[in-house]
Amino acid sequence: MKLVRYGAQGCERPGMLDGQGGLRDLSGLLRDIDARAMARGLQDSLGAVDAGRLPRVDGTPRLGAPLARPGKIIAIGLNYVDHARESGMAIPAEPVVFMKAPSTLSGPYDDVPKPAKAEKMDWEVELGIVIGKPCRDVSELDAAGSIFGYVLANDLSDRAFQLDRGGQWDKGKSFDRFCPIGPYLVTHDEIADVHALDIWLSVDGERVQQSNTRQMIFKCPAIVSYLSQCMTLEPGDLVITGTPAGVGLGMKPPRYLRGGELVELGIAGLGTQKYRITR
Amino acid sequence: MKLVRYGAQGCERPGMLDGQGGLRDLSGLLRDIDARAMARGLQDSLGAVDAGRLPRVDGTPRLGAPLARPGKIIAIGLNYVDHARESGMAIPAEPVVFMKAPSTLSGPYDDVPKPAKAEKMDWEVELGIVIGKPCRDVSELDAAGSIFGYVLANDLSDRAFQLDRGGQWDKGKSFDRFCPIGPYLVTHDEIADVHALDIWLSVDGERVQQSNTRQMIFKCPAIVSYLSQCMTLEPGDLVITGTPAGVGLGMKPPRYLRGGELVELGIAGLGTQKYRITR
Repeated sequence: MKLVRYGAQGCERPGMLDGQGGLRDLSGLLRDIDARAMARGLQDSLGAVDAGRLPRVDGTPRLGAPLARPGKIIAIGLNYVDHARESGMAIPAEPVVFMKAPSTLSGPYDDVPKPAKAEKMDWEVELGIVIGKPCRDVSELDAAGSIFGYVLANDLSDRAFQLDRGGQWDKGKSFDRFCPIGPYLVTHDEIADVHALDIWLSVDGERVQQSNTRQMIFKCPAIVSYLSQCMTLEPGDLVITGTPAGVGLGMKPPRYLRGGELVELGIAGLGTQKYRITR
Repeated sequence: MKLVRYGAQGCERPGMLDGQGGLRDLSGLLRDIDARAMARGLQDSLGAVDAGRLPRVDGTPRLGAPLARPGKIIAIGLNYVDHARESGMAIPAEPVVFMKAPSTLSGPYDDVPKPAKAEKMDWEVELGIVIGKPCRDVSELDAAGSIFGYVLANDLSDRAFQLDRGGQWDKGKSFDRFCPIGPYLVTHDEIADVHALDIWLSVDGERVQQSNTRQMIFKCPAIVSYLSQCMTLEPGDLVITGTPAGVGLGMKPPRYLRGGELVELGIAGLGTQKYRITR
């Protein structure tokens, strides 16, 4: 299933794509695609739904983030060997964990305003995991069963607040709209091998990131298992799993996002995002 | 006003203390003490309430965290000079920001189980700020008006996951129940000077932290203003503002929490917490 949330910002309704990619309305069946729906067994209840019988949605409404506000957004750093090298950092012996504020969530085609103080705004295309069941101290084997699905994400970052200004990374990762996700949330059963997906990002038409999720150092079950040793992962939590080489920070000289630039990104099977950096 | 949430874990009801410290029920007036209630003007609506006319609550029910699940928990590190020194870290030039998972919240008298993998569990008594109004890019002058109230907090930490195991601090800060808050949430108007409050913590009756909030390097309005440059602070968000010297990490040799130990802490005007570390 490909789940979406459509409509104006803050008023999104749940929907899904039918076999022809048409938009169907789910609001007769659930209130939102959120932690509560997942905790109540969203996947099982939707498994029995015939998308072709759901009401068609006319026109081309805005698509929002395909997951309502998560309880937490956890991010894994330096999870592709070539990206750790370009950042001048060591290959991690265990997952590098940080958090983005849940208020960073944004839709897949929404403009992203460059914050006034963000002098070094950078991109990071990433595979996102959406948690479907509470998990705590789970093995890698059991971790797979806790995953609801996957989503394309951009871990936008301001390198000045993340790195230059001291302290921890979170503040450079948590500006509003610094986590566009979507266009859709794909349930895990639709992805044959999540570690064999092409992943890419372009700025103003120039392909700057191009890799494959098989290059991830820590794979999805290992990440979920590791995190579950530190905290309970809850339905609706979002875990983004690191970016491959090709970020602006790694270029010589570094290249950061400017107002007016167009960012496009995609992961095979998870769709594409496209938006302007404004201001 | 002193606001509380009382009842069994996960089923807490809102309440407040009357002039004699008696518990009164607020559930006829609001559903919970949470982001939604604050966004709808909780402070103004409760300002007109005569606590003495609210229903009395019989007995001594459990008190939970006096704030329902916040959208984010932001923490300020190394915000007392003596604590930065004992940690062997530099005095920060600007606030050190990290996050704790919102799933860490715990009540003021609830047992805190020592996580199986937490080998260096440590304490940090802190002043917590609860945000009452959305704020973004606010000045220090305006920041004060965004603060709903204050709460006593313990920023429990596992130093092994925070420091020894590489990466960022968040993972050592986000174990379940690693953020006990309460007993009550005190509205800002009840605290004459939030930067003149005695703050202390004891382990098994031994006073290990003893300071005053006047020792904070960055004061509350400066912290709120700074954070609001990086992200929108939202009603119900919790900001904890750093701990004074006297944590286990700073002792020679370091001393960490063991199962069975009793932790007590307090801030003048904000009440006290008391709980066992279990396992």
